[in-house]
Amino acid sequence: MTSGGDAPGMNACVRSLVRSAGSHKLLIDGIIRGYEGMINGDFEPMSARSVANIIHRGGTILKTARSKEFRTKEGRQQAYEQLKVNHIDAVVAIGGNGTFTGADIFTKEFGIPFIGIPGTIDNDLYGTDYTIGFDTAVNTAIEAIDRIRDTADSHDRLFFIEVMGRDSGYIALYTGIGVGAGNILLPETDTDYDELVNVLKAGVKRKKLFNLIIVAEGNKTGGAIKIAEEVKKRFDHYETKVTIIGHLQRGGAPTAADRLLSSRLGYAAIEGLMNGERNVMVGIINQEIVYTPLKDAITKAKKLNPDLVKMSGILAT
Amino acid sequence: MTSGGDAPGMNACVRSLVRSAGSHKLLIDGIIRGYEGMINGDFEPMSARSVANIIHRGGTILKTARSKEFRTKEGRQQAYEQLKVNHIDAVVAIGGNGTFTGADIFTKEFGIPFIGIPGTIDNDLYGTDYTIGFDTAVNTAIEAIDRIRDTADSHDRLFFIEVMGRDSGYIALYTGIGVGAGNILLPETDTDYDELVNVLKAGVKRKKLFNLIIVAEGNKTGGAIKIAEEVKKRFDHYETKVTIIGHLQRGGAPTAADRLLSSRLGYAAIEGLMNGERNVMVGIINQEIVYTPLKDAITKAKKLNPDLVKMSGILAT
Amino acid sequence: MTSGGDAPGMNACVRSLVRSAGSHKLLIDGIIRGYEGMINGDFEPMSARSVANIIHRGGTILKTARSKEFRTKEGRQQAYEQLKVNHIDAVVAIGGNGTFTGADIFTKEFGIPFIGIPGTIDNDLYGTDYTIGFDTAVNTAIEAIDRIRDTADSHDRLFFIEVMGRDSGYIALYTGIGVGAGNILLPETDTDYDELVNVLKAGVKRKKLFNLIIVAEGNKTGGAIKIAEEVKKRFDHYETKVTIIGHLQRGGAPTAADRLLSSRLGYAAIEGLMNGERNVMVGIINQEIVYTPLKDAITKAKKLNPDLVKMSGILAT
Amino acid sequence: MTSGGDAPGMNACVRSLVRSAGSHKLLIDGIIRGYEGMINGDFEPMSARSVANIIHRGGTILKTARSKEFRTKEGRQQAYEQLKVNHIDAVVAIGGNGTFTGADIFTKEFGIPFIGIPGTIDNDLYGTDYTIGFDTAVNTAIEAIDRIRDTADSHDRLFFIEVMGRDSGYIALYTGIGVGAGNILLPETDTDYDELVNVLKAGVKRKKLFNLIIVAEGNKTGGAIKIAEEVKKRFDHYETKVTIIGHLQRGGAPTAADRLLSSRLGYAAIEGLMNGERNVMVGIINQEIVYTPLKDAITKAKKLNPDLVKMSGILAT
Repeated sequence: MTSGGDAPGMNACVRSLVRSAGSHKLLIDGIIRGYEGMINGDFEPMSARSVANIIHRGGTILKTARSKEFRTKEGRQQAYEQLKVNHIDAVVAIGGNGTFTGADIFTKEFGIPFIGIPGTIDNDLYGTDYTIGFDTAVNTAIEAIDRIRDTADSHDRLFFIEVMGRDSGYIALYTGIGVGAGNILLPETDTDYDELVNVLKAGVKRKKLFNLIIVAEGNKTGGAIKIAEEVKKRFDHYETKVTIIGHLQRGGAPTAADRLLSSRLGYAAIEGLMNGERNVMVGIINQEIVYTPLKDAITKAKKLNPDLVKMSGILAT
Repeated sequence: MTSGGDAPGMNACVRSLVRSAGSHKLLIDGIIRGYEGMINGDFEPMSARSVANIIHRGGTILKTARSKEFRTKEGRQQAYEQLKVNHIDAVVAIGGNGTFTGADIFTKEFGIPFIGIPGTIDNDLYGTDYTIGFDTAVNTAIEAIDRIRDTADSHDRLFFIEVMGRDSGYIALYTGIGVGAGNILLPETDTDYDELVNVLKAGVKRKKLFNLIIVAEGNKTGGAIKIAEEVKKRFDHYETKVTIIGHLQRGGAPTAADRLLSSRLGYAAIEGLMNGERNVMVGIINQEIVYTPLKDAITKAKKLNPDLVKMSGILAT
Repeated sequence: MTSGGDAPGMNACVRSLVRSAGSHKLLIDGIIRGYEGMINGDFEPMSARSVANIIHRGGTILKTARSKEFRTKEGRQQAYEQLKVNHIDAVVAIGGNGTFTGADIFTKEFGIPFIGIPGTIDNDLYGTDYTIGFDTAVNTAIEAIDRIRDTADSHDRLFFIEVMGRDSGYIALYTGIGVGAGNILLPETDTDYDELVNVLKAGVKRKKLFNLIIVAEGNKTGGAIKIAEEVKKRFDHYETKVTIIGHLQRGGAPTAADRLLSSRLGYAAIEGLMNGERNVMVGIINQEIVYTPLKDAITKAKKLNPDLVKMSGILAT
Repeated sequence: MTSGGDAPGMNACVRSLVRSAGSHKLLIDGIIRGYEGMINGDFEPMSARSVANIIHRGGTILKTARSKEFRTKEGRQQAYEQLKVNHIDAVVAIGGNGTFTGADIFTKEFGIPFIGIPGTIDNDLYGTDYTIGFDTAVNTAIEAIDRIRDTADSHDRLFFIEVMGRDSGYIALYTGIGVGAGNILLPETDTDYDELVNVLKAGVKRKKLFNLIIVAEGNKTGGAIKIAEEVKKRFDHYETKVTIIGHLQRGGAPTAADRLLSSRLGYAAIEGLMNGERNVMVGIINQEIVYTPLKDAITKAKKLNPDLVKMSGILAT
């Protein structure tokens, strides 16, 4: 099943799961709409053919939803019964922190073997270098900002551009480096307006004609709109504009890297299951498959590489 | 010169102007930053080589700006003197309504021959079927919404998506038809919430699982955020989300149609100038070059095709 | 049904046909794989839901094929019987010259009302300004060549690039103008090597560092490979490379213009059918719907605009 | 300087080099057209401003060329003298195997400190997980093949698609996994027609309606055209087509991953130089910066991951 927010590559992963399972002669059902579908017994038998021609599609053919009911004991009980009735012996779910938190409780209560696959554009999961959808989301944001760059350049403007990432600055950092941002405001650090304004002023001195500031959605000081207002109060050299990239970051055909990652993780999930892995999240660290206990995946923090943060500052000069 | 908001295709048009002028052995200068550059004498001699390799670039190499000074008699006087000093005998400007309004006053005051070229993503100019940048902006919006579609579909959501168009529904209508929108809310018509909700309800009855509503920026009842709130009060079947596409609609490499249009209009502007056209906007109507007096271009309204509005309703079923 | 080569926008048109038919309470079946499916009785009932979420997809959900059997009297007889058995009272087909030629014979033999919709990337049909898929194909070619441009520019190379168009230079001409080609070799005209070399030499004199020559597949003198060889014999200033864009021009999500065109033509086909139009191709000329007798659509030639050919030469300087 | 075939991300790397050098107060010149420019003394002083707004551009603003003269002792002597005259104390070059082979000889002869940066779409260099341009090239190939997929699907066709990679199957393998290819023919392995045909037959049995076979340019048995012919002789169930993606794989805006990689490598090249690294290639292995002696970079082979090859076979079922 896919669960939580959709992410590009989920379909490529579903394809990989079904075909890898097929190579072990396993029967596989798709659960429709995540835990909600599990509770409602919304299962669909899948074959190599039912996942043909989906590797390149954004979204998820299994649909996804957030389930309140699964947070209750009764909901999970019902889900368990549906699995039993339908002869499901193990569950593989593509999702994020919320999905795995539910799974951790569920597997402890009912003992159903579970493998999690990290699928979220935010790349905020411990136990894997990258999550499914992250590379696509960053590329989508960069492509959008390349367009904004044309306008910023033509008008000599200062743009504040908000990208996704409520708790994690991964999207903002990678996007910011990718577009050559003048500044990147992360959720992990506080925004110091004086410092920000000083950097902008130094840029003007160096004849930097336009400037793009990337703001992570979850920046503590505020979103792009608020920050733009505050900066304008302090420094109004530039004509200033704000854009919030928004939901379009979630969709679209997955990139090469996301298709490869999705394919590898789906394949490794089935291999892991066959080799006795239980209640883990499968990830790739330094190009190797790694199985991380669910508990660690949901509680341990993945940190940004401080070298990249430092470098982004130097290259912005 | 380019003036007003930038639009994809402006560079292709500048290239066409310079090379068409070259074929008549005319000398041509680029004016940097529109009327502001005219006032400041910011001129650059241009040759066939200086417009090489720009046909595919968004934005404008001549930069653009809005000039307050040009609205004053003194500003225009100074602009005139700069033109004289620099031996400029005629001005060709790519821009929109504001640009041509200024030009209309200026040419009457100082008698400088002027040719306008319609360059604005809004397609709100009388005297041409399409303006430079419109086709690209619509394609960009559609591409962005195709991504949102993946998410809407995966989550069975209702999306309100705001596209550009302050006074004109062209972008909204074309985008809405292009994405198969459930509804298109135009600046030209009032939004009737009861009707809108009825259409949504009928969709649910037909098992329409997700729905995309396109809202033009200039819709009188309010933007996408307000409309989404009002609809939610009346009908909360769907999980509802809002996205404002924003400035990314302005940039990017121009589409084939915009490159062709830009090339043709640049070429026709020079041909017109050589044939004695004065104080007109050049456009293409039904594939033919047409020169429209500036006065008409800035005062007459271009109407949406009511057949398209009707059709969009039928196809949304 | 869709028939002949697939073209982006066919799905948008199928959607429009089904929903427009629905608005008249007509029952509609999809014929799978064109005339082949008609002969085999491969029909599928369609509803507003069965065409949901396809407006943006390349290819055709109805599949397409070329049918040898339909060229025989027996084949057509069988097709007719299948239509009768399945209570089909009229046929609407999206396709090109071959499709309409077959239809013209078929309707004369059996009197089945037929409406053709021009769907071919080549834009070589009389009776419409543009055919479904043309705008997308040109944009795809231009996007591909924009990439090649980076390499040509970095290496100061001369590229011969072959685009589709066996009998018609539309794709080549529009693509060539769109990429700012140094030369465009059309099927409609002979290639004069001396002239071509002179233009290349003049470019070198003007310090044109790289050069892109667009060759239509159907150019009489030969394809891009042969022409490149001949030119190299006569003028070897540049490092020379050849690329044949090939089949990728046929696919991909349709552009805005193709989605609009497809939607309008599908809608107009049903309106025409209801208003008694028979054995015609529906097209759009100067933005108006036009019904052209099949006979004319398949025999009359659509000519390239000579002004565009002339302009392309001037802008290449 | 940039040298050898151009690769997307080279400009992002040049930007990173110039700004990283600036942070150490180093003066930096761009060498135009690789070794050819070095021999001709074609140097241009660069500043933070001269690399503004290039991070997103394909190709290389420093241009590139292959130099025969540099293969001679005289050529290298002249290059050395030009470096001395222009007070160049160290050289950083972005390129591939040929570039580094030349550098290895040159530095031994004249003792000029040299840092190489792996820039080639082929990803065939030892000492780094990925080379600049590889991720973009694979994404470009996948995007092109996604379009071909529409046609293959609509017509139930078998496509043989040739991608770049003369000595290395990296592009073919990653592209093949990304498009869900039915088979991937690598330069590293021989093509067994009987086996290939058996796989195709098995696919038909499983009702695989269309099939995409990826062929690396350097496949020993032959290119896509030859292989398609041979297969057709043995198995003609499908209508068969061939496409050679060609030079468009080299160009275009770099992906996020290539911009990040390019930025990191440029930064690390300067850091390495300041820390005394000499005659090495800088790479990233398992996310860490690694400096590899030039000799190793040019002689040791980088192998494909056999797990990926195996997985691609299983997922193709």
